[in-house]
Amino acid sequence: MADSPNCDLKSLSPLQLFERVTEQGEKVRALKAGKAPKDEIDAAVRMLLSLKLSYKTATGQDYQAGLPPRDLTLINNGTTKEEDEDFVDPWTVQTSNAKGVDYDKLIVRFGSSKIDTDLINRIERATGQKPHRFLRRGIFFSHRDMDQILDAYENKKSFYLYTGRGPSSQAMHVGHLIPFIFTKWLQEVFDVPLVIQLTDDEKYLWKDLTTEKAYEYAKENAKDIIACGFDVNKTFIFSDLDYLGTSTGFYKNIVKVQKHVTFNQVKGIFGFTDSDCIGKISFPAIQAAPSFSSSFPQIFNGKENIQCLIPCAIDQDPYFRMTRDVAPRIGQPKPALLHSVFFPALQGAQTKMSASDPNSSIFLTDTPKQIKTKINKHAFSGGRDTIEEHRKYGGNCDVDVSFMYLTFFLEDDDRLEQLKQAYTSGELLTGELKKVLIETLQPLIAAHQERRKQVTDEMVKQFMTPRKLAFEF
Amino acid sequence: MADSPNCDLKSLSPLQLFERVTEQGEKVRALKAGKAPKDEIDAAVRMLLSLKLSYKTATGQDYQAGLPPRDLTLINNGTTKEEDEDFVDPWTVQTSNAKGVDYDKLIVRFGSSKIDTDLINRIERATGQKPHRFLRRGIFFSHRDMDQILDAYENKKSFYLYTGRGPSSQAMHVGHLIPFIFTKWLQEVFDVPLVIQLTDDEKYLWKDLTTEKAYEYAKENAKDIIACGFDVNKTFIFSDLDYLGTSTGFYKNIVKVQKHVTFNQVKGIFGFTDSDCIGKISFPAIQAAPSFSSSFPQIFNGKENIQCLIPCAIDQDPYFRMTRDVAPRIGQPKPALLHSVFFPALQGAQTKMSASDPNSSIFLTDTPKQIKTKINKHAFSGGRDTIEEHRKYGGNCDVDVSFMYLTFFLEDDDRLEQLKQAYTSGELLTGELKKVLIETLQPLIAAHQERRKQVTDEMVKQFMTPRKLAFEF
Repeated sequence: MADSPNCDLKSLSPLQLFERVTEQGEKVRALKAGKAPKDEIDAAVRMLLSLKLSYKTATGQDYQAGLPPRDLTLINNGTTKEEDEDFVDPWTVQTSNAKGVDYDKLIVRFGSSKIDTDLINRIERATGQKPHRFLRRGIFFSHRDMDQILDAYENKKSFYLYTGRGPSSQAMHVGHLIPFIFTKWLQEVFDVPLVIQLTDDEKYLWKDLTTEKAYEYAKENAKDIIACGFDVNKTFIFSDLDYLGTSTGFYKNIVKVQKHVTFNQVKGIFGFTDSDCIGKISFPAIQAAPSFSSSFPQIFNGKENIQCLIPCAIDQDPYFRMTRDVAPRIGQPKPALLHSVFFPALQGAQTKMSASDPNSSIFLTDTPKQIKTKINKHAFSGGRDTIEEHRKYGGNCDVDVSFMYLTFFLEDDDRLEQLKQAYTSGELLTGELKKVLIETLQPLIAAHQERRKQVTDEMVKQFMTPRKLAFEF
Repeated sequence: MADSPNCDLKSLSPLQLFERVTEQGEKVRALKAGKAPKDEIDAAVRMLLSLKLSYKTATGQDYQAGLPPRDLTLINNGTTKEEDEDFVDPWTVQTSNAKGVDYDKLIVRFGSSKIDTDLINRIERATGQKPHRFLRRGIFFSHRDMDQILDAYENKKSFYLYTGRGPSSQAMHVGHLIPFIFTKWLQEVFDVPLVIQLTDDEKYLWKDLTTEKAYEYAKENAKDIIACGFDVNKTFIFSDLDYLGTSTGFYKNIVKVQKHVTFNQVKGIFGFTDSDCIGKISFPAIQAAPSFSSSFPQIFNGKENIQCLIPCAIDQDPYFRMTRDVAPRIGQPKPALLHSVFFPALQGAQTKMSASDPNSSIFLTDTPKQIKTKINKHAFSGGRDTIEEHRKYGGNCDVDVSFMYLTFFLEDDDRLEQLKQAYTSGELLTGELKKVLIETLQPLIAAHQERRKQVTDEMVKQFMTPRKLAFEF
């Protein structure tokens, strides 16, 4: 096999090719240093050149020692100008396009699959439920191996759901709710266990926080998550700082992932540098490990082969591409994924919402008045400059943040379509569209606040206690 | 402070200087990219040059971006020829000197302190016990902050002992016993708690082993350690794979250490490369964390400030230099250390014993016959080529492995001195010296085997169960 490198090179990722070139280069040096026979050295050099060519074909760039390709994070929008490129990784989402990131290009670039009508129909058939508006409207737009999950489900084989949150501050905004709203729906229609990871260790490593503070945020965030209406008998919420020290299975999976991922790989995937702390460098394994059911022996009765389905925003995909790469090498099933688009900031779809800028988001703690003021003052409008122009040419729903928010939160499809038509035709004014959004969000957030008030510390403790759930494995 | 970099540069290690140069280089690049005022850029460049000069002065080498100094591992024996340099890190010990590593040079290079007569006398006064032969004979030869431990002890402030072992195979050799024999003595004379770490996760990461196998070795090795005679009421033995998932304090300390150590640092200290897995890269934090009493809340009642004393072979010092560097930054006391020399291989003091070469060592499972054969056949002799020459010129105890082993295992100082005199004068022949060693080791190992037979799985479980020990904190 070592003599015919091209047979399987096409299936390798740029990063894998990079590592093959690096290894082969080392081999050539070792052969030369060891004064190996000339024909052996020649053969090794030929293979090196062939590998470098494959690398160039795959990446469009010459191989440079020590400089792995930055995997998958630059999504070229079809031009060569840098400012036209979307940038997506777990910490940064940037696009210059007011419509937001080009998600079709992201699917091609990430190598995931589009959630198409066939898949949505199949989910409807399998569950007997109307697909959630996030599916109907392309908010969850991409997946990996969802058909495997459905194959298994149709054959009465169970799976489990895994999602999470990095608890960086006490206040969550409405965008943070998207994965939880959808996960709750998935749990209800499939009736499966759910684990929710609160990465307080990650926040400790990345931010200027004590472990105590990070854990406190985790417990506060758990209240907002519980307020989404999860069933305590079917849901386990855990803080890494806490659960790692109380699980017999979690650390074993972490160390297994850590053995099978090199610094070169996390450098390529996450852009870490030599100046990063070793905690950041090894953290991806901690987000990976809950993808394996053996991390939760109390729930799955020690079983290793229960498949996992992860609903998350697409910026978290790098963690799970890494996880899926490692899984077969440690004898575990690859987790399946459902990816959502990003929730836009009030100021426009160019960036993700930020918990640190109070005006970029509607927070779950905002009063009805604050909601109204923020939307009226900050929500980017796709309307025209004057009423006359607006009446004549109509507004642009593709860039209008109020309309975008309504696609997330207005349940009624017909009403949404009517609003779109009316706004596009110029019949509906920006102020009127904003009013619909305000009237949609105010009761939703008030109801959330009401439910959250009823979440006691005792309930948080129950959700966060490792225990058997209401499922037999 | 930023404008006068030289004021405190002399106190920085080569690695710290390296990082200062790197940071300053990045600052200059950022200023240039940001088109900062010329005088600001000039000042930053001047400081960069000044830092590079300090780096060159400290290391004798030009600064090279991305290539940190390999900290502390090359100990120059006073010549410039490469083959004359001792090399010491946790995985490799190499010297070309038949007497073994030059430990006085190691003390200077590592920046530790010599265990001198004053300190030994002070230990004797504090404990009221005759110092252990390992102290009397310079086998434990170096320390860090042992006087602090004694200050505190004399003021009735307690401390605890921490040592460990990497369980790479079922068979341990006599060299592996050295830290445990000495730790047992320390525990008895000071009457303090002891924690013993079995780094089965390390062995999983470094070797071709499953986690199950590594854990099995840990439990097997625990039997040999228990057979040294430790008191179950005062000693906690733990496997990382097991304890990490059952301790509320251990992981929190690990992640704290991981936040305060960069990849650059572990690269400098341990020689890791970009091709190493992220598990190896973050492992040093796992060996560091037991140095902090909060890793064992069940023993220390949650107290954070109990000082730790670590008896270990000097090759483990890099882990604890790193730990001592981090400790004040995470609000913990620095652990104190007592360093031993390396136990020589039968073939001579040039290398450490190796568990993978059965003839390099006397194993704890060897029969009396095997012990006799190995010593007679493989123990490097400092005697002369012929009996006549030996009688005339005498033998050389400095390179004679049988004599070295006797310094480790023969308790009687007078007898050891007589043997030395007789061998050096030529009166005692190599075969006779070997016979003394055989007769010393055979009963010691037989007794160990007898005690080990009596160690049941139940006893191992007791030692390895997290619990309160017989001390109040």
